[in-house]
Amino acid sequence: MLTYTLEPHTSVPLYEQLIRRIKEDISSGILNPGEKLPSKRSLAGNLGISTVTVETTYQQLIAEGYITSAPRRGYFVSDISSLPSVSVTQDPMDHRSKTEPTLREIPPVYTTDFSNSATPGENFPFTIWAKLSREVLSGESSRLLKTSPGTGIPELRTAIARHLYSYRGISCSPEQIVVGAGTEYLYGLLIQLLGFNRVYGVEDPGYRKISRVYQSYGVSCRHIPLEDFGKCPEILNETEADVLHISPSHHFPTGRVMPIRERNILLQWATEGDRTIIEDDYDSEFRMVGQPIPSLFETDPFGHVIYMNTFTKTLASTVRISYMVLPEGLMNRFRERLAFYSCTVSNFEQYTLSLFLTSGSFGRHLNRMRNYYRAKRNRILAILTDSPLASRMRIREEDAGLHFLMELDMQMPDQCFTEKCAAEHIRITPLSTYYHDPGQAPQHIFVINYSSLDETRLPDAVRKMAGILRDERTT
Amino acid sequence: MLTYTLEPHTSVPLYEQLIRRIKEDISSGILNPGEKLPSKRSLAGNLGISTVTVETTYQQLIAEGYITSAPRRGYFVSDISSLPSVSVTQDPMDHRSKTEPTLREIPPVYTTDFSNSATPGENFPFTIWAKLSREVLSGESSRLLKTSPGTGIPELRTAIARHLYSYRGISCSPEQIVVGAGTEYLYGLLIQLLGFNRVYGVEDPGYRKISRVYQSYGVSCRHIPLEDFGKCPEILNETEADVLHISPSHHFPTGRVMPIRERNILLQWATEGDRTIIEDDYDSEFRMVGQPIPSLFETDPFGHVIYMNTFTKTLASTVRISYMVLPEGLMNRFRERLAFYSCTVSNFEQYTLSLFLTSGSFGRHLNRMRNYYRAKRNRILAILTDSPLASRMRIREEDAGLHFLMELDMQMPDQCFTEKCAAEHIRITPLSTYYHDPGQAPQHIFVINYSSLDETRLPDAVRKMAGILRDERTT
Repeated sequence: MLTYTLEPHTSVPLYEQLIRRIKEDISSGILNPGEKLPSKRSLAGNLGISTVTVETTYQQLIAEGYITSAPRRGYFVSDISSLPSVSVTQDPMDHRSKTEPTLREIPPVYTTDFSNSATPGENFPFTIWAKLSREVLSGESSRLLKTSPGTGIPELRTAIARHLYSYRGISCSPEQIVVGAGTEYLYGLLIQLLGFNRVYGVEDPGYRKISRVYQSYGVSCRHIPLEDFGKCPEILNETEADVLHISPSHHFPTGRVMPIRERNILLQWATEGDRTIIEDDYDSEFRMVGQPIPSLFETDPFGHVIYMNTFTKTLASTVRISYMVLPEGLMNRFRERLAFYSCTVSNFEQYTLSLFLTSGSFGRHLNRMRNYYRAKRNRILAILTDSPLASRMRIREEDAGLHFLMELDMQMPDQCFTEKCAAEHIRITPLSTYYHDPGQAPQHIFVINYSSLDETRLPDAVRKMAGILRDERTT
Repeated sequence: MLTYTLEPHTSVPLYEQLIRRIKEDISSGILNPGEKLPSKRSLAGNLGISTVTVETTYQQLIAEGYITSAPRRGYFVSDISSLPSVSVTQDPMDHRSKTEPTLREIPPVYTTDFSNSATPGENFPFTIWAKLSREVLSGESSRLLKTSPGTGIPELRTAIARHLYSYRGISCSPEQIVVGAGTEYLYGLLIQLLGFNRVYGVEDPGYRKISRVYQSYGVSCRHIPLEDFGKCPEILNETEADVLHISPSHHFPTGRVMPIRERNILLQWATEGDRTIIEDDYDSEFRMVGQPIPSLFETDPFGHVIYMNTFTKTLASTVRISYMVLPEGLMNRFRERLAFYSCTVSNFEQYTLSLFLTSGSFGRHLNRMRNYYRAKRNRILAILTDSPLASRMRIREEDAGLHFLMELDMQMPDQCFTEKCAAEHIRITPLSTYYHDPGQAPQHIFVINYSSLDETRLPDAVRKMAGILRDERTT
């Protein structure tokens, strides 16, 4: 007969104690496979506990497969193929000290950070967003909790189509739009749609995350120096890429706008070889001078361009909503192959963003942001041109988007300058690091992301940078 | 000299009209590459418009690459390599009629739907969620808009670790947790983490979406009949799978709990071959009888098991928040290779869910849901056993989760019964459709998802199903 000493006065219920003890005996081989267990009544009598407790214990042991019950014959130990080192005897409470959740905090190091491209929180239209969220949450719950189509709720896709038409001159149907939690997620969907065996071309220099996604998916990825391809279009065929991922309206990091001649060559290349262009229009909203640059998508009559954009830049980097517009042919393929995926954006945020778009709040927010960033850019340019650094620098490509380039007249290697800046708590990234082969890259040019730059500290940082250049001459 | 008739009294600004007309002339070859354009002043005089308008026009044409400017020499037409069929002449307004966003609506067909596994909206704790959302949105915005680590905000990971410890007996550090927008997204991350060249084993029968994700990623996927593998463990090695994706606590669709013997064999298999098990614990919270089944993750001393769960089931199918717990070794590899990915869940929802967990609301909600579903399941079982169908059916595996199985005593093929049900607006799915080879599957067993079932219509639906079986005998 089984005999266990149970503790009636602890917080652990008797049946839990009994379950654990019998499991231990089965795991350690004290109870052997096939061995008959005492009846519920006799075990209860022996241990001085109720039969209900034994009943609960046996049922749980049956559910987990430690014992079996044979009708009218009783309960039997199962053959559990013990793992010698699986320690079921360990008291789960023993873990507590070592698992008390803690997190390492990494303190911020830089006081001036030219490398941070996040949009600052202070500009997020909190009050309106919170009001619209409340409206959504106080709305009809059955609608809110109806599963979203994989491509996003119709309300949001309709609002995006209207927005694209008004602000970007793009004509598309809401049924061509796919909403997802960030562009990185959409890149992954596109690889699944276009194929793992295709060769993906990315811009060199370019936004490093894009090629990292392709590499992480294990597909062939070519880094193509597109800055010169207008002069030698053969380069496109030489790389064997058949999907090209580009930002023609505002290239990162050079800020270059792709001229119409190169756009036409690209469209011809795509059409001839049944290739695909992914147009990543990530900050077209922030063109500071003139009219918006027309998108490649709208000038493509043959359905080879996929348009992609995000609200991450225009709203806040923590709002994870992006979208893409597929040409009809690819959209049909998407419906066949990828429609089974659930939408990755929650309904609450999809509805809130729909309201934000249709109420005109987004349009007003964009105008406010353009003015804000234009003014900020001008103040920063003024600080730079009015600083001791002015005689040693040249500003480039400042018309569009939330970054520009600064070329410095200096001798030391970029890496050396970057390190001296870091020692002064200034973070700055050379353009060359965005090249696949940094050795081939132009030197002494730096990327200035200004969206999150702390202006109050800028004059001091610029003085220090000028100091670093001055020291170079004197030594 | 260029001569255009511009319309001063339309809503289209003069510079937009002029830009469009010059683009047309360049695209159609009326203006040739290299041709010099009139000076701003003379074109303005000729057209009777201001030089500012011409200045704006030229700047935009330069930005888009249609013309170039040479200092002190003037403006020249670029060689744009025209695409003959790219119609830049089309008035964008022409699209309006055909692109006025519309969406196809598919009307609901079924009055009783046993195939819908979504959790019903009415149970979502709206009031509390809205209150916590408001708290989050009225909180410190700088914290809210700080970019989330790729694995999720520390607050949420800490809250999940505590929840796992209390409710599931799982000891892990918040730094082992990765938060993502739905389990399907996390499956994709795991393929990138574990490798595209590995062989992934899924349960046969099983949840079809899982194998669809693997297929969509182009990796080898084997369907393994795990129900029998306790009897012949060799099957695991024969399939050559080295990653196994399973739901040991509550298998879908059979509802089976994996017994301890098979768990031990699996852990041994994983340890011997340095293989990985993905434990998809998708509805362990809804075990209706007895204690929770211990997770494979916590019984694995060797770090070969990845634990995965979702709030989609427990909260609402439209809240897209899931998470996984990686063993230390894999978490290190994740940090090296995949840390560059942004988190796919917005900060607002991450903070709201953190509060929901730490305030105890989630625990209370789970208790309420368990009681709700237990009562609902009992009412549905009562309706079934008290119906004309009772003599022809047997209920199986009803202890856990939000579905059970119904075996029917009938002769007709499952497909035929399903179609007759559909004609009566009843949607029901045979177990066999969840088998990779439905021909090998047991027949006459149906999956009853009851979480969203409309009980008021159930008695009528059951009468109709009994009628279908009765007709079978009489014909």
